[in-house]
Amino acid sequence: MKNVIDARCTLCGHTFEAHPDTTVCPDCGGILDIEYDYDYIKSKLTKYDLMDRNERSMWRYMEFLPVEGIGKRPRLRVGMSPFYEAERLGKLLGVGTLYIKDDGINPTASLKDRASAMAVVKAEEAGKDTIACSSTGNAASSLAGNAAAAGFSTYIFVPSRAPKGKVAQLMMFGANVISVQGSYEDTFRLSAEAIDRWGWYNRNAAINPYLMEGKKTVALEICEQLNFKMTDYVAISVGDGCTIAGVWKGFKDMYAAGFIDRLPRLISVQASGCYPINAAAAAHTLDWKPQEENTIADSIAVGVPRNAIKAIKAIEESNGITVNVSDDEILEAMRLLGRNAGVFAEPAGATGTAGIKKAIELGLIEKDASIVSVVTGNGLKDVNNAIKAAGEPISIPAEMDLLLDAFEKKGIKLP
Amino acid sequence: MKNVIDARCTLCGHTFEAHPDTTVCPDCGGILDIEYDYDYIKSKLTKYDLMDRNERSMWRYMEFLPVEGIGKRPRLRVGMSPFYEAERLGKLLGVGTLYIKDDGINPTASLKDRASAMAVVKAEEAGKDTIACSSTGNAASSLAGNAAAAGFSTYIFVPSRAPKGKVAQLMMFGANVISVQGSYEDTFRLSAEAIDRWGWYNRNAAINPYLMEGKKTVALEICEQLNFKMTDYVAISVGDGCTIAGVWKGFKDMYAAGFIDRLPRLISVQASGCYPINAAAAAHTLDWKPQEENTIADSIAVGVPRNAIKAIKAIEESNGITVNVSDDEILEAMRLLGRNAGVFAEPAGATGTAGIKKAIELGLIEKDASIVSVVTGNGLKDVNNAIKAAGEPISIPAEMDLLLDAFEKKGIKLP
Repeated sequence: MKNVIDARCTLCGHTFEAHPDTTVCPDCGGILDIEYDYDYIKSKLTKYDLMDRNERSMWRYMEFLPVEGIGKRPRLRVGMSPFYEAERLGKLLGVGTLYIKDDGINPTASLKDRASAMAVVKAEEAGKDTIACSSTGNAASSLAGNAAAAGFSTYIFVPSRAPKGKVAQLMMFGANVISVQGSYEDTFRLSAEAIDRWGWYNRNAAINPYLMEGKKTVALEICEQLNFKMTDYVAISVGDGCTIAGVWKGFKDMYAAGFIDRLPRLISVQASGCYPINAAAAAHTLDWKPQEENTIADSIAVGVPRNAIKAIKAIEESNGITVNVSDDEILEAMRLLGRNAGVFAEPAGATGTAGIKKAIELGLIEKDASIVSVVTGNGLKDVNNAIKAAGEPISIPAEMDLLLDAFEKKGIKLP
Repeated sequence: MKNVIDARCTLCGHTFEAHPDTTVCPDCGGILDIEYDYDYIKSKLTKYDLMDRNERSMWRYMEFLPVEGIGKRPRLRVGMSPFYEAERLGKLLGVGTLYIKDDGINPTASLKDRASAMAVVKAEEAGKDTIACSSTGNAASSLAGNAAAAGFSTYIFVPSRAPKGKVAQLMMFGANVISVQGSYEDTFRLSAEAIDRWGWYNRNAAINPYLMEGKKTVALEICEQLNFKMTDYVAISVGDGCTIAGVWKGFKDMYAAGFIDRLPRLISVQASGCYPINAAAAAHTLDWKPQEENTIADSIAVGVPRNAIKAIKAIEESNGITVNVSDDEILEAMRLLGRNAGVFAEPAGATGTAGIKKAIELGLIEKDASIVSVVTGNGLKDVNNAIKAAGEPISIPAEMDLLLDAFEKKGIKLP
């Protein structure tokens, strides 16, 4: 690929040629980062070319992606998710201009579809016909869905505590699901052994450097949807660290290619019940420490983040802000997004917005700032927490007098 | 509006001027149908103009819609949902060419968003600031979401048996939810009384002629996504009847304007536990009879369909086919869609596909036919039925030997 220079280790800095099945650094085991030739990209693409393009998916940004093409297999339409200016919500939060990038509107309803779509293309390049991962969350469902469309077999290892609904989704996509009677570590270990034994393509953000390249497309889209006028801040929830690192990479790509003329500051939002990346970033150290996983936002409950280094570097480089929010603040952000923007987010999807609210309250952000809040997953993925956040409806027999009483008690004033 | 001629009663045929808050026929109570001036539309729009248009939502088809504009309020991005050629699934079913229109990829995850987006625009035209309906299903959640984005108040009446998850989704969007301790008829009656008393805008497919105009945009998109080369058939699940009637209207619009050169035959698919429209259509009569509501596909479990006449006429006009499918056939279609196309459908969303399978088996469709299957709602809306359809995963302790045994028992052969 003429646009890709090499893969560089994020730990030891050694560089290697990037292959479709490149995994971790052969020297030190660190996660690799794909490096691009921006002069080449600039010679091939201008932002005006881009705006004229018909492709309405993440593959619109081919020049910025580490692929030769997108292969011959059918695929789901991932990306180009909605981007809204949220005036009422912005005013409520005290933000100058607020935008929402709703990545819950994706084929399997989360941002992870971007990584899995990339994994499917790289698996085809690598000549594999089977893809595996261990996860119970959005990574697994997005792999199962994107692989099913493309005709790949999948083997997905889940700990036996995984909720039945999530397992059902995987099974519906035809994944071979192995429910492991043990901890997540046991599950991961068995999956690694099986991947090694049968040579399956590995869709694991702790190993595979291409997943982040898929995730960064959300940032490429944000730039274009902002008409290449970057906001002051971009807020996003952080779990493993791969997504925020990908987002930062996307902005840096667009900046390096001259498509945007400044970079945003990242607002890294974690749950106050699990914030190992923010703890390290706030102390300006790469030396992060594992934490317990105490939050309802399951998609970012990652006590031992595999991409912590990349994430902390991204926050540092962007002169970013770290904010930790409680479960109650997350539930409140779910309500705010639903009521004032019509966006139904899963808890981790609303966490970025919760962080903006808190950062404003703490005076960490100037009041006239422009901010993008990335919603990473759809509320339909976690209806139980929506029930927690929602409150109780009016409940009455079918009598107009009782309705009038109920409205009065609720403070609903009607003529 | 220069493109709209009038509103014609589907029962008595009388015509009226169409106003934003036009409801049923003042003469006989029949549901009205908006009529267009296709010569005017043709003079304003060609298919080549359309293909060049940047708007990527249902509002791309303004010339075919009964609106002056889309108002000043913010709105969700509804429509332009994915359209896939499903080669593997087509082969499995024995179809010549199979396409899937995945309308589960919409802001609140169903085709109903198209109707609610239209209701929001018409409510603004009518100068209303509150919209109401009685429903527990996709109509309610789409109204709540689209109205929240646009800053309308909503009052949504649900029977007390409505599942907590669905009520929670409405509450998250800030709807005033009134849970009525009584039957659906009690609920409907109280809502009608309240709508009448407070003059709210009425989002009810039994009353409001504009909802079908929103729904028809799915057909306009299908035409364009087929590059204006119409398939032999279009299959869709049928409940109240408004959606299939809207789909047919959309195809007729495109045909009348010369954008397509033939019309498809409709495949009207209902559940064998509730098929009042298909029963009448198969007997070539408009005199439909109420039925019990015995199916897992709750979104089409409509024993007393309010738009039966429009639907039966659409099936007749298209020289359509009626097929009724069992709950088991619906669950099987959910698995087929998930495994072979990566599309996760709610039961009613997979019903069209179940109907195609059955129609082929019954010899009702020629084997080389081209067919579009419309998926009307996302599987995440109904995870309990996905669990029913999914089957059980492999469950083992974290031991490679046990994994090998389990694969052998399941008939999974690996090198």
